[in-house]
Amino acid sequence: MLYKHKVQYYETDQMRIVHHSNYVRWMEETRVAFLDMIGAPMHMLEEMGIVSPVIEVNCRYSGMTHFGDTVEITGVLEQFNGVKMQVRYTMRIAGSGEVCCTAFSRHCFMQNDKIINMKKKYPEIYEKFAERIGEDAQKL
Amino acid sequence: MLYKHKVQYYETDQMRIVHHSNYVRWMEETRVAFLDMIGAPMHMLEEMGIVSPVIEVNCRYSGMTHFGDTVEITGVLEQFNGVKMQVRYTMRIAGSGEVCCTAFSRHCFMQNDKIINMKKKYPEIYEKFAERIGEDAQKL
Amino acid sequence: MLYKHKVQYYETDQMRIVHHSNYVRWMEETRVAFLDMIGAPMHMLEEMGIVSPVIEVNCRYSGMTHFGDTVEITGVLEQFNGVKMQVRYTMRIAGSGEVCCTAFSRHCFMQNDKIINMKKKYPEIYEKFAERIGEDAQKL
Amino acid sequence: MLYKHKVQYYETDQMRIVHHSNYVRWMEETRVAFLDMIGAPMHMLEEMGIVSPVIEVNCRYSGMTHFGDTVEITGVLEQFNGVKMQVRYTMRIAGSGEVCCTAFSRHCFMQNDKIINMKKKYPEIYEKFAERIGEDAQKL
Repeated sequence: MLYKHKVQYYETDQMRIVHHSNYVRWMEETRVAFLDMIGAPMHMLEEMGIVSPVIEVNCRYSGMTHFGDTVEITGVLEQFNGVKMQVRYTMRIAGSGEVCCTAFSRHCFMQNDKIINMKKKYPEIYEKFAERIGEDAQKL
Repeated sequence: MLYKHKVQYYETDQMRIVHHSNYVRWMEETRVAFLDMIGAPMHMLEEMGIVSPVIEVNCRYSGMTHFGDTVEITGVLEQFNGVKMQVRYTMRIAGSGEVCCTAFSRHCFMQNDKIINMKKKYPEIYEKFAERIGEDAQKL
Repeated sequence: MLYKHKVQYYETDQMRIVHHSNYVRWMEETRVAFLDMIGAPMHMLEEMGIVSPVIEVNCRYSGMTHFGDTVEITGVLEQFNGVKMQVRYTMRIAGSGEVCCTAFSRHCFMQNDKIINMKKKYPEIYEKFAERIGEDAQKL
Repeated sequence: MLYKHKVQYYETDQMRIVHHSNYVRWMEETRVAFLDMIGAPMHMLEEMGIVSPVIEVNCRYSGMTHFGDTVEITGVLEQFNGVKMQVRYTMRIAGSGEVCCTAFSRHCFMQNDKIINMKKKYPEIYEKFAERIGEDAQKL
């Protein structure tokens, strides 16, 4: 999955760089695009009563991004056993290719306020995910 | 209603001032505090299935606000006939008293996706609002 | 100017619609795209020490937008005399074409903390704007 | 350091809980309050040309927060050798005391685009931090 985000003016702060909280939002944008791509879009999951809360996020910032930059984000589904899912992100500034952030997020899936095992309960959806585990984003 | 908001670092942009979209959020903070004060808190309304969407917002910016400023916001319920409500806001920078923004917002009330007349449907709640119409915030 | 914004999950609120403050941000996105289009990009202005603060914003919400919607925004430069600029926005939901918001914003231009007359001080940049006044976005 | 944040309506998303990116902002609010407390406020540092970019953030979400909740955040300065600083955060929901998030952030200090050693360059400021390393927030 390769996702592109154009940095907006309202994402900057008075350090004249993007406020670090926005990278967490771009990770979500990337996941949403990933779910669209594999044919399990978020709105479909939500219509089924399934939500996918974030259990953990981690961002390591190795560079700064600025207003007008395009950030290229590769999202890789690292792990998913039906219960817990981990996605890894590498964010590069378009043009220079400089890595500005490496990150991961971990998620579970819930329905009616209970954690569910997607592999058992929705194996056909789980398969859409499973096929992508470890897939090299560069190939896409 | 006098509400105070402390300007956060993440609310600034690269002009080194608060991004103008945040004032719209502070107006909401003020309304939430107003609803608490009159005894009709937002969460109570939402538990009754009542939401209060924004129909219009208007902000006139007459000054800038900076990280660390405390903004004092007076909110006055200008009009409410049970169907449409208008709230006016005057935002001042604590200390100098400089007016940085004058604003208004207009709202309706909805239940089950339909606009409702609070005066007819919930007269006891409507009264809590009606008592405050035009009330001078400075007196509070 | 026709600008498209894809509604993000983090832009929704617990009413299950986009929080109204985000429309003000999309207006900025539209202006940034407009400045790019006319050859006076924001970063170029800022490198010249010119900033363009918002004096007033007004949004009339006539519909709701939801996660996953694409919002098509036409931005029209209504007025610009070199000192004050007004931009009008019409936001439609892609697909249905339903107008969800009509809005305007007013701006001035500042350099070294003083309001400047772009027509007098930077006539060649002013011309780039002037050529677009009243231009029908649909034609673009 | 004990910091309190009242959850705002605009911080919720359509899952009817606070969007996870906001916790990263509350961590910043806590740091800003910490810097005020120890007598090295952010605005003072910035006037000296010192900024403190975030190198890493990590949040583990163990509960959900909702509109109207007050979140009590204890911030503890875990490590600071003058170059790299680590702050740990425990977020609890006021009332129940339920821990909703444990987090840390790591930072450096920069001046004129270069990483500086606060201990060497500004020992008197470094001392204000050093006195607080490991300090139990509950005692404050």
